Amino acid sequence: MSDLTTPATRPADTASGPERGRRIDGKAFAVSLRKQIAADVVAFHAEYGVTPGLAVVLVGNDPASEIYVRNKALETHHVGMRSFMHMLPETTTEAALLTLIGRLNADPEIHGILVQLPLPNGIDARRITNAIDPKKDVDGLGEVNAGRLSLGLPGLIPCTPLGCLMLLQSELGNLRGLNAVVVGASNLVGKPMALLLLNEGCTVSIVHIDTINPQALTRTADILVVATGVSGLIRHDWVKPGATVIDVGITRVPTASGKTKLVGDVAFDEVAPIAGRITPVPGGVGPMTIACLLQNTLTAARLSLSESA
Amino acid sequence: MSDLTTPATRPADTASGPERGRRIDGKAFAVSLRKQIAADVVAFHAEYGVTPGLAVVLVGNDPASEIYVRNKALETHHVGMRSFMHMLPETTTEAALLTLIGRLNADPEIHGILVQLPLPNGIDARRITNAIDPKKDVDGLGEVNAGRLSLGLPGLIPCTPLGCLMLLQSELGNLRGLNAVVVGASNLVGKPMALLLLNEGCTVSIVHIDTINPQALTRTADILVVATGVSGLIRHDWVKPGATVIDVGITRVPTASGKTKLVGDVAFDEVAPIAGRITPVPGGVGPMTIACLLQNTLTAARLSLSESA
Repeated sequence: MSDLTTPATRPADTASGPERGRRIDGKAFAVSLRKQIAADVVAFHAEYGVTPGLAVVLVGNDPASEIYVRNKALETHHVGMRSFMHMLPETTTEAALLTLIGRLNADPEIHGILVQLPLPNGIDARRITNAIDPKKDVDGLGEVNAGRLSLGLPGLIPCTPLGCLMLLQSELGNLRGLNAVVVGASNLVGKPMALLLLNEGCTVSIVHIDTINPQALTRTADILVVATGVSGLIRHDWVKPGATVIDVGITRVPTASGKTKLVGDVAFDEVAPIAGRITPVPGGVGPMTIACLLQNTLTAARLSLSESA
Repeated sequence: MSDLTTPATRPADTASGPERGRRIDGKAFAVSLRKQIAADVVAFHAEYGVTPGLAVVLVGNDPASEIYVRNKALETHHVGMRSFMHMLPETTTEAALLTLIGRLNADPEIHGILVQLPLPNGIDARRITNAIDPKKDVDGLGEVNAGRLSLGLPGLIPCTPLGCLMLLQSELGNLRGLNAVVVGASNLVGKPMALLLLNEGCTVSIVHIDTINPQALTRTADILVVATGVSGLIRHDWVKPGATVIDVGITRVPTASGKTKLVGDVAFDEVAPIAGRITPVPGGVGPMTIACLLQNTLTAARLSLSESA
């Protein structure tokens, strides 16, 4: 059950409490969320005669990005939305990409626009992201949606933290008053996650690479969300017994047998016996991200109606 | 020196350490900042032939707001900027106010626009704030500037947290790695303050009305910023010995002699002997707010040039 390489400092803790190490099945949650979205798409079309449409833009030939955009397009299609792919050569200029975004912004059949990151050198990703109409910014990475999240206003929320929040609310219900600690302060996950949890009434701390003694804070967390990209960073003695642990990290590492496997930022085998609930890697947060992109596309389609109403 | 009404729990702490209870003189800092801004305004005009201009808009007859806008206009004038006042009747409609903002947005002599809050009932303050051109949004309260702050991009930062940051950097230098706790999660102070401190490399926690045991976090703070409007909330046992305490609160309370006085959110006489450095109320953060408004107006004038360059 555990492969602790350092002695457990709190054996009594790990044995007590009502429940320990419950796996949060993100894959199953994402399946049911996609089913719900597919039903909502049917109902939305029945009521308004509109089918939500998502445009995904890929520039260049990064193999991982090609897989991501293909999966996004396929899942969009599977829930009954329109899916548009724009695959542009590595030599695409920033000006040409801005022209395409302008055209997609103006296209009434497109409700969501996603430009796959990273972009080739010579293209300013921030300028591109901000050029997307905030009402179509289904990645939630533009300045306006970041501002709306910070101000506690409705808007389009970055997919990964939105997925984490859905899992947390499904497991814990109302989050008000819980101590949440977010490890990692990125624009993509850490900061929006912290703001989302703050808006839900959590007491929120953000721990990052400059933090002197991160364990002192992580050990107080009822909710611990980890998004650092450092595999196995979170050890058993970083976690409060009974905490809900959400592991956003995903890294491919070699195994003893010469193959590779995917691991998270949390040392799962150590932490699972202590945590109340924990997401595995893979099968935890990962499947939620694309499902939330679809959710955001539906939200964006609704926004397009309220705008023209 | 102290009027503790509860026994000191850590007498050894309050007696130890290199320095305790040093007053941070925000008034003197603001005077020197305004002098610097006045010199910068002269240099800016000499180089570009442009005098920064600030438009302040007041709707209605709230007596406190009348004093605030008068002071803002006077201080703008005193540092050599152009100051424009628009005092509109209580009956002003949202549409009329939006028209005025559109005109000010288009006016090349206006570099900063401030609409004094609160606005009368029937006017949507969020809609008004967002209507201000982000490059002229010297209060930093619009969605775009809130987003830029959240994303760690340059922009116009709300005046009060900017003033707090200037005081902290002046006292402590580089803030990287320090534990910062912000008490209060408002859009005006708490949230932007937390994001500013995060961008400076602090480990940041936000404590608020739903926090179960706020002292557990505040007692870990190297930097404690308090903005709740609850006078005297922060007692001696909430503060780590040697901490730097920034008190944003300002409340008028009655005294025993039947007069009134201004007090902060920190029980000053209790906390000063424990804190390393502390801002008094009045004379701490307050004077920095208008000085930072002037700083932002100069920043906005610079932005207007880089835009047309």
